Amino acid sequence: MNFAAMAAAVEGAMTVPEFLFILVAILVTAKVMGELAERIGQPAVLGELMAGVLLSASLLGVVDSTNAVIHIFAEVGVILLLFQIGLETDLKRLISVGPASAVVAMVGVVLPFVLGYFVADALGMGTMPAVVAGASLTATSVGITARVLSDLGRLQDPESQIVLGAAVIDDVIGLIILAVVSQVMGGAELTMGGVLQTTALAFGFLIGVLVIGNFVVPPLFSFLARIGKEETLGTMGIALAFLIAYLADAAGSALIVGAFAAGLVLAPTDHAMTVEHNVLRLSMFFVPIFFVSVGAAVDVRTFADPEVLMIGGSLIVVAILGKFLAGYAPWWFKGKKSVIGVGMVPRGEVGLIFAQMGLTTGALSTGHFSALTLMVMVTTFIAPPLLKMLFPPRADAPHQDPGGVAEITTEA
Amino acid sequence: MNFAAMAAAVEGAMTVPEFLFILVAILVTAKVMGELAERIGQPAVLGELMAGVLLSASLLGVVDSTNAVIHIFAEVGVILLLFQIGLETDLKRLISVGPASAVVAMVGVVLPFVLGYFVADALGMGTMPAVVAGASLTATSVGITARVLSDLGRLQDPESQIVLGAAVIDDVIGLIILAVVSQVMGGAELTMGGVLQTTALAFGFLIGVLVIGNFVVPPLFSFLARIGKEETLGTMGIALAFLIAYLADAAGSALIVGAFAAGLVLAPTDHAMTVEHNVLRLSMFFVPIFFVSVGAAVDVRTFADPEVLMIGGSLIVVAILGKFLAGYAPWWFKGKKSVIGVGMVPRGEVGLIFAQMGLTTGALSTGHFSALTLMVMVTTFIAPPLLKMLFPPRADAPHQDPGGVAEITTEA
Repeated sequence: MNFAAMAAAVEGAMTVPEFLFILVAILVTAKVMGELAERIGQPAVLGELMAGVLLSASLLGVVDSTNAVIHIFAEVGVILLLFQIGLETDLKRLISVGPASAVVAMVGVVLPFVLGYFVADALGMGTMPAVVAGASLTATSVGITARVLSDLGRLQDPESQIVLGAAVIDDVIGLIILAVVSQVMGGAELTMGGVLQTTALAFGFLIGVLVIGNFVVPPLFSFLARIGKEETLGTMGIALAFLIAYLADAAGSALIVGAFAAGLVLAPTDHAMTVEHNVLRLSMFFVPIFFVSVGAAVDVRTFADPEVLMIGGSLIVVAILGKFLAGYAPWWFKGKKSVIGVGMVPRGEVGLIFAQMGLTTGALSTGHFSALTLMVMVTTFIAPPLLKMLFPPRADAPHQDPGGVAEITTEA
Repeated sequence: MNFAAMAAAVEGAMTVPEFLFILVAILVTAKVMGELAERIGQPAVLGELMAGVLLSASLLGVVDSTNAVIHIFAEVGVILLLFQIGLETDLKRLISVGPASAVVAMVGVVLPFVLGYFVADALGMGTMPAVVAGASLTATSVGITARVLSDLGRLQDPESQIVLGAAVIDDVIGLIILAVVSQVMGGAELTMGGVLQTTALAFGFLIGVLVIGNFVVPPLFSFLARIGKEETLGTMGIALAFLIAYLADAAGSALIVGAFAAGLVLAPTDHAMTVEHNVLRLSMFFVPIFFVSVGAAVDVRTFADPEVLMIGGSLIVVAILGKFLAGYAPWWFKGKKSVIGVGMVPRGEVGLIFAQMGLTTGALSTGHFSALTLMVMVTTFIAPPLLKMLFPPRADAPHQDPGGVAEITTEA
């Protein structure tokens, strides 16, 4: 009955102490590089990605992103992140922000996807990798955008409201695209009927969870709040996220669509803040593991490959162009349209999820994955200083803090 | 490059969704049964153990405690728990509580060990299992004791102070016994020289960490507090616990001795509260996984075995007797000595760690492990109502909350 040895064998010869050592390396490097990134005015997530690159098999060789245990910790991280984004998404406010956000979001999805697909295809990437490339160009990181606008004291400006609304809509659309693309990459043939079916499934699952959840979850959590302690709500919220993620997967949708839906269902209840407060420290631990493991999947040796640099460079151009033009889509809006466009540029975690899924399912080669990661890193890197330039900090405004969003970005 | 499939193969054919499902079952069952236990006046940890038994392979078959991924999550849980206990241990206060605590602790270790060893040996368990049985009888659960005394509003009574001091000393002695026993079970022969060497190593590592840590850790964390955010201290504290646990293992000591030492080193700094606050939500997630996985290691079918019941019953008698008599050891103390003895009875998590280690290394058969678990469960179960009977709640006293200790017990 020696299961320490058995366990080590099953884990791929990784013992608990070895795993602890890797965990220490991830936590410390992510924290140090995240703080360094913030000191030079960049989002912490960029530092965490760089930490992953540094620890990757191609540099220090500490973190093997294909290791089963690291993969599970990383997946728990991304599930918690999308649960938290869902918790902070107010569907009603989203609707009231109006048509401008919707137009920016739609154009900001269609234009980068089409541009990305055709550029990738023209560069000879092949149909499937071009779809993944186009998909990862559609993303907008609501966390990064919200944090930057908050730091500038500009969160209540109309431009910021439009960007936030559009970024949130983008997240929902992005998750549906993700489900469609992941289905397609899972082996389903790329037919119109198949895409429609998958879209229907992704929408259907999301709507089903929102409708059923709307009846079941608020009374359940009110009951839990009456009988249990605050931490009970936290634990049950986390369990709900894991459960709906599991069901999403079982229904043929993506794990993170389920986690996001769990957040949306809980968001309008009186207990959203309590749950989020309880999830926060947990995601501060798990989420950087996700970003580090994504960074560790980058093979820096491929950056020396002229093809990667050419594809990456071309994708960066259309990535910025597609979102920037989307900012000009609400023609009736009188404010600074350039700010809207630039606010939509950072791809952040959502773009990486696409790239990571492409690599995981084998749809992307390591080279194509590296090109997409380069695009995500550059767009995420370039947006904060550009925004600061176009939209100078408001000295008179009180420091606006969007609450959890800022904390997600800081820590994740 | 399909590493989803690779990962599933390495994990022992457990996919991420499957793991999420098991996690949901663990979190919800542990929370529900923990709350139920508290409603009937028992510590939550008892409910979590019962949750593990319910989910075990021998009943519902949901949690396989030998699974590599569950094992790693459980180990992170017990490391965080002992880190937190270390963080709450004030060595100076411990010394000031005086000789009474020390005498209770010493007698409360020696008497149960000797009684347990001879009873187990007399029942034909064999030398090595008898050593493990004796060792697990030496433990006292500081968390459970502190929580019960706090709930009774009796934390500042002299009896409580002696019990708390003794329980903390017991934890340190227990951890050293654990290191000695784990060395011995690891294959080292049971010689006096070997035991002394292991004791020296365990003490040496602990003293070395405390001395070096005393110079390095406070300035490091003061520096981190100046340059970083509050969460930085939390993450770095957790990383420190994992690092010292890793080093303890590398030095031939136990992972949890390292985690406890990391807590002791941080405890006297200005940042102990900040770190603990940050660790709390993380341990609320991980620690129940440990207790559930321990509960899940129980094979209920063995309880039908008359030998298990006989050994378990005999160990329960000496477990209670040994600690109860230890309460009378400080003969000069004029207060209620029965309260001290009963306060030392619950074995809780430390007793389980011994039993678990015995099972893991193959020193204990499943039957012997079940007998020890029965002893831990009964002693943990019997202490709260007995204490309440001997030491009626103080109606006039304000509700004394020992802070994190209560929260550990509640959640863990």
